[in-house]
Amino acid sequence: MKLTKETNILIVGLGLLGGSYARALSEQGYAVAALDTRPGAIEYGLSEGMIYAGSTAPDKDLLGKADLVVLALYPHLVISWLRDYQHLLSPGTCITDVTGVKGTIVGEVQALLRPDLEFIAAHPMAGREVGGVENSRADLFRGANYIVVPTERNTEEGVALCEALGRALGFARISRLSPEEHDAVIGFVSQLTHCIAVSLMTCNRQEHLEDYTGDSFRDLTRIARINDELWSELFLFNREELLRQIDLFSHELSTLRSYLEAGDREAIRAMMRLSTARRALFDKPTQA
Amino acid sequence: MKLTKETNILIVGLGLLGGSYARALSEQGYAVAALDTRPGAIEYGLSEGMIYAGSTAPDKDLLGKADLVVLALYPHLVISWLRDYQHLLSPGTCITDVTGVKGTIVGEVQALLRPDLEFIAAHPMAGREVGGVENSRADLFRGANYIVVPTERNTEEGVALCEALGRALGFARISRLSPEEHDAVIGFVSQLTHCIAVSLMTCNRQEHLEDYTGDSFRDLTRIARINDELWSELFLFNREELLRQIDLFSHELSTLRSYLEAGDREAIRAMMRLSTARRALFDKPTQA
Repeated sequence: MKLTKETNILIVGLGLLGGSYARALSEQGYAVAALDTRPGAIEYGLSEGMIYAGSTAPDKDLLGKADLVVLALYPHLVISWLRDYQHLLSPGTCITDVTGVKGTIVGEVQALLRPDLEFIAAHPMAGREVGGVENSRADLFRGANYIVVPTERNTEEGVALCEALGRALGFARISRLSPEEHDAVIGFVSQLTHCIAVSLMTCNRQEHLEDYTGDSFRDLTRIARINDELWSELFLFNREELLRQIDLFSHELSTLRSYLEAGDREAIRAMMRLSTARRALFDKPTQA
Repeated sequence: MKLTKETNILIVGLGLLGGSYARALSEQGYAVAALDTRPGAIEYGLSEGMIYAGSTAPDKDLLGKADLVVLALYPHLVISWLRDYQHLLSPGTCITDVTGVKGTIVGEVQALLRPDLEFIAAHPMAGREVGGVENSRADLFRGANYIVVPTERNTEEGVALCEALGRALGFARISRLSPEEHDAVIGFVSQLTHCIAVSLMTCNRQEHLEDYTGDSFRDLTRIARINDELWSELFLFNREELLRQIDLFSHELSTLRSYLEAGDREAIRAMMRLSTARRALFDKPTQA
């Protein structure tokens, strides 16, 4: 299956990410419908023209005619949704997701999936510190990274469809990683950073710190405004890897601490120069 | 002395901060001159209309007629500049600075200062990850915090002048802290965050991480592009306090790690909820 304007796309879970998928795809003329248990989300999606149809129930018609299903759900719901509703999908339907952990999820999903369906895991590396469909944006993925996470159960055609979806959404870089590679990388660039931001925000209970702060502290703690239900689940799904990443970072910070304690200015400067050189690689392509 | 359009302001060190002071003040009609040892900086300042006069030497005329001197220099140069050139200033001149550490500096400066001059320490909590007068901006201080750091050697009139300067520069919040309070707060909100950003940037040497990153990692490492000469000096001038702040943060991160290891989801969620509530205080007033 190729992604065309005739492809019937069904978004399951019309929140920040599902809504941003819907907006970005509808704006380009793709046919997008949605399921969400919250009536307000479906009404909003219809009123904004983000979807042409929607339902708060697992509508047999929408499910049966879907060519491509995007599960924009909490990790554990990806598994239970497929267990409960995959019998309503037509043979040949492709399913993808937006989940931030892959190792556990992808294995379970592919084990329970009907053999005539295909699940291609993907991770859009974008978000906002506010959730909900009302905060969704068509340009949320502009300049961002998209990771497709195929396994040996996937076909090249399915993976190509998923990559085409990433291009349609406007991502700047599209990569492929195995589930294990994905979870190690995401444990570092995403989950560890959230652990750091939360710890930085809670470690000092002194009042009025906001009167003295600069942009550095604001930047490091933007993501300390966090959806505790979602992120605690993501952390625990990737526990071993995240523990390893916390240890890696803690060791480096304690190395810097030891240079400082010893008054070793040259060692501190060398570390800062390495940091400066490496950081230059991380600007968004559009900012370069 | 009150800050008026007749006040002769002399900026010493026309870099990112000195240049932004000059731009912001000149745009409002204040009379601003500058000293900088680099001919290019003075030429640029004159050509941009940021200053009405400038010199690469310690010009006796500019120094003698200055009412308010802003030392926008590296910390150790604040001390040596005053030692070398204070004899060229007129009685009653007020001097302020932009230095990111206060404890050591302010004590040394006030000990060596002529009794007919007044030094009022201040810290503008704003910056950019790029330096130099070419990157200076008149609106750099919009919405930002300004900390005045008086001691028992200061007059109320001098402190009020410094606060008037902060208002003229466009700062949103102007506070007073003692040198010790300042260094503790800045050790936390500024120096610790730079230690974290640098360590995060250098702890994982895996290649191509930039292909998989999201905005969280970019945010947490924006300041990992760091002026190693300046910041190593700032760290070492505030060594004891910064060591204490690193320990405070490391302890909190290891607490989160222990919740994760134990699979204690409720403890993780409670920490995230505290983090979310506290972070809400830190948005810039203009963003609120």
